[in-house]
Amino acid sequence: MKKTVKLGMIGLGARGETLLATLFTFPQDEVIVSAICDVKQERIDKFFQIMADHNYPKAKAYTDYRELIASDDVDAVLIPTSWNSHLKIAEEAMSLGKYAGIEVGGASSIDELWHLVRAAESTGVSCMMLENCCYGRDELLSLNLARKGLFGELIHCSCGYEHDIAEMAHLGNREEREAHNYRRNGDLYPTHGIGPVAKILRINRGNRFMTLTSTASKARGFTKEAERAGRGSVVYNEGDIVTTVIKCANGETITMTHGVSLPRPYSRDFRIQGTKGLFLEDTKSVFIEGISPTYEKIDVAGNPYTVHEWTPKEEMYEKYDHPIWKEFRDNPSGGHGGIDTLILRAFCDAVRNRTTPPIDVYDCAAWMSITCLSEQSISLGSMPVAFPDFTDGKWIYQTVGCEGKYSLDEVFE
Amino acid sequence: MKKTVKLGMIGLGARGETLLATLFTFPQDEVIVSAICDVKQERIDKFFQIMADHNYPKAKAYTDYRELIASDDVDAVLIPTSWNSHLKIAEEAMSLGKYAGIEVGGASSIDELWHLVRAAESTGVSCMMLENCCYGRDELLSLNLARKGLFGELIHCSCGYEHDIAEMAHLGNREEREAHNYRRNGDLYPTHGIGPVAKILRINRGNRFMTLTSTASKARGFTKEAERAGRGSVVYNEGDIVTTVIKCANGETITMTHGVSLPRPYSRDFRIQGTKGLFLEDTKSVFIEGISPTYEKIDVAGNPYTVHEWTPKEEMYEKYDHPIWKEFRDNPSGGHGGIDTLILRAFCDAVRNRTTPPIDVYDCAAWMSITCLSEQSISLGSMPVAFPDFTDGKWIYQTVGCEGKYSLDEVFE
Repeated sequence: MKKTVKLGMIGLGARGETLLATLFTFPQDEVIVSAICDVKQERIDKFFQIMADHNYPKAKAYTDYRELIASDDVDAVLIPTSWNSHLKIAEEAMSLGKYAGIEVGGASSIDELWHLVRAAESTGVSCMMLENCCYGRDELLSLNLARKGLFGELIHCSCGYEHDIAEMAHLGNREEREAHNYRRNGDLYPTHGIGPVAKILRINRGNRFMTLTSTASKARGFTKEAERAGRGSVVYNEGDIVTTVIKCANGETITMTHGVSLPRPYSRDFRIQGTKGLFLEDTKSVFIEGISPTYEKIDVAGNPYTVHEWTPKEEMYEKYDHPIWKEFRDNPSGGHGGIDTLILRAFCDAVRNRTTPPIDVYDCAAWMSITCLSEQSISLGSMPVAFPDFTDGKWIYQTVGCEGKYSLDEVFE
Repeated sequence: MKKTVKLGMIGLGARGETLLATLFTFPQDEVIVSAICDVKQERIDKFFQIMADHNYPKAKAYTDYRELIASDDVDAVLIPTSWNSHLKIAEEAMSLGKYAGIEVGGASSIDELWHLVRAAESTGVSCMMLENCCYGRDELLSLNLARKGLFGELIHCSCGYEHDIAEMAHLGNREEREAHNYRRNGDLYPTHGIGPVAKILRINRGNRFMTLTSTASKARGFTKEAERAGRGSVVYNEGDIVTTVIKCANGETITMTHGVSLPRPYSRDFRIQGTKGLFLEDTKSVFIEGISPTYEKIDVAGNPYTVHEWTPKEEMYEKYDHPIWKEFRDNPSGGHGGIDTLILRAFCDAVRNRTTPPIDVYDCAAWMSITCLSEQSISLGSMPVAFPDFTDGKWIYQTVGCEGKYSLDEVFE
């Protein structure tokens, strides 16, 4: 029988609600939310009500996260708090021997990431970024195709976060995101895009990010929305589109696009390309040598030219779905189409088995560093800036984990 | 009755054949190819044969382009020669009072572009880049949508040239392209992508390119193709994917992707985005506020979120096709789906009327400069490099033309 994992949740906003809804689907003798914490009593009351509505055992409540992480009632904490507080709380939790599940976001300084890394290394307790997009069906399909060699040697990727949040006032999380976008100018939300790409490129496991350049467009989208909402003429610092280009140690390039203030359908701009083919989210297709059609046509002068045709991604699912999606696809449950279930399951397994999670502290540091590095590059006129090596050289080995333990990760290996 | 435009064609390769095939569809009393030139007699003989096969009047032939451009038999020259010779020949032609139609490509130095600009300014004769993609249906649809304000204020564009030429040995133009890709490392073929975007962003007419950064991936594609073709292990300098990010004077950003050595379907990565919507080539769709559907859904925790839906581009054609495509769409003729006809018609009109062509010498210089600037940036580790202002300040006015004549361009205004 599995040991029960006792989770504490710190930060009871909209994201906390989604995580809780997913955790309701887990057997309570395997995973239980035993403690909750928020600085606002009304958020605690709302969570009590939600738990009662679902006949879920009432959790112990805290208004000070330091008390929660010091409690013996929790094995690990989930941290869907405000962006600026993720890292500090995770560092403190690990210092007290608690695993930390960090919600997504970007770092404000390189130093806070070093603190996170050193906390994990000094205690042997790890943290995991709850980057659910790493478990997306198409992201894992692409990983599977890459590992089987169908893309050949990997050359170039793209990713991003293009999501119109300017008009999302009713979602309740506007104030914080707006404050970041009001004052900062950089790729403020890199991990939905870069997480899956970093896994596929084996970043920190034989490869690493070396440098980036970042360029911001002018800022108009949030201003337009503020005017429409009758809040007057407000000038934001965040460029509507921030483009970041990363060069990796093994020569791959990654183009990232951050755009959260312009109206458009959601996209993560996902593309994985190698010497034999590519996956391209926007076309919902792959092209793979030997699988996708290639034929010749004749131009007006009578000369031949070659045409390559896309293969719809659906044609790849049956044969190439990632093993965990093969099990999961007929009955996905939980938030965001099921990916919240997969990420929380992975985190709880790591906590239960005291193993290094599949997305570890070095991943957190590398991915979240993009935010402050892109701010630096933009403020320097798109100058290239260098990534720190948060692994202190361990990245040159195929797999690394916290404290020299090799990752046993079966999903992304 | 229209004055007959007498064209000389210099460079009788595959591109020359396509241009000739398109010119066969023009009335011979309006446009005639009166002279041809190539250093290879067999190319001249092939053109004589093609002309005879089409009952086309036999042109006068030259093996030295200097004799052709000095001849009274031509009003203007088309220059589908090797990339490195376009600019020199165009400069010399203008110096002798002949309009020059430059085929697409990139520059090797900033200085050769200054020479081109000064030749046009000192003679009052202009040159035009024969960038047929500026006349593409979707590019002009997007320009029309932009001019009508449907995208709002323009913010970000992307473009590129992704075309697998590694395996195109049989097309006969492999040697030259291969030499460039063997020695150089940069965006070697920028104009199919940047031309339409520059027109839409009014580059040189109230806006200009300010800086760029360029980043190259490792180079594997051409090597793989050389091995497959039994030519041994050859190392190329050109990165398989070169990503360039341009910042414009008015704050817009442009992401460019150059990839010619990896197998994939052709794409020019065209995207035009503003505060109210975007066109995206890869999705074959637009999203435009007020036209495209937007609605709310509910997540697992019961909270609402907004979904934006694409509108297929075909739904925009009837109402928003560019005026010249409205006339042309039912019966396109000529090379590359008709766009060769439109670009050659525009060039010949400018020659006949002695007006500044819609793609003028400043456009040529700005667009072609991307190649040598991207080489500089890559060799400097992706450092930002600055564009020269080839207009010497004239760009701050809405429309500029050679020698202070305002452009009368009706297509791109």
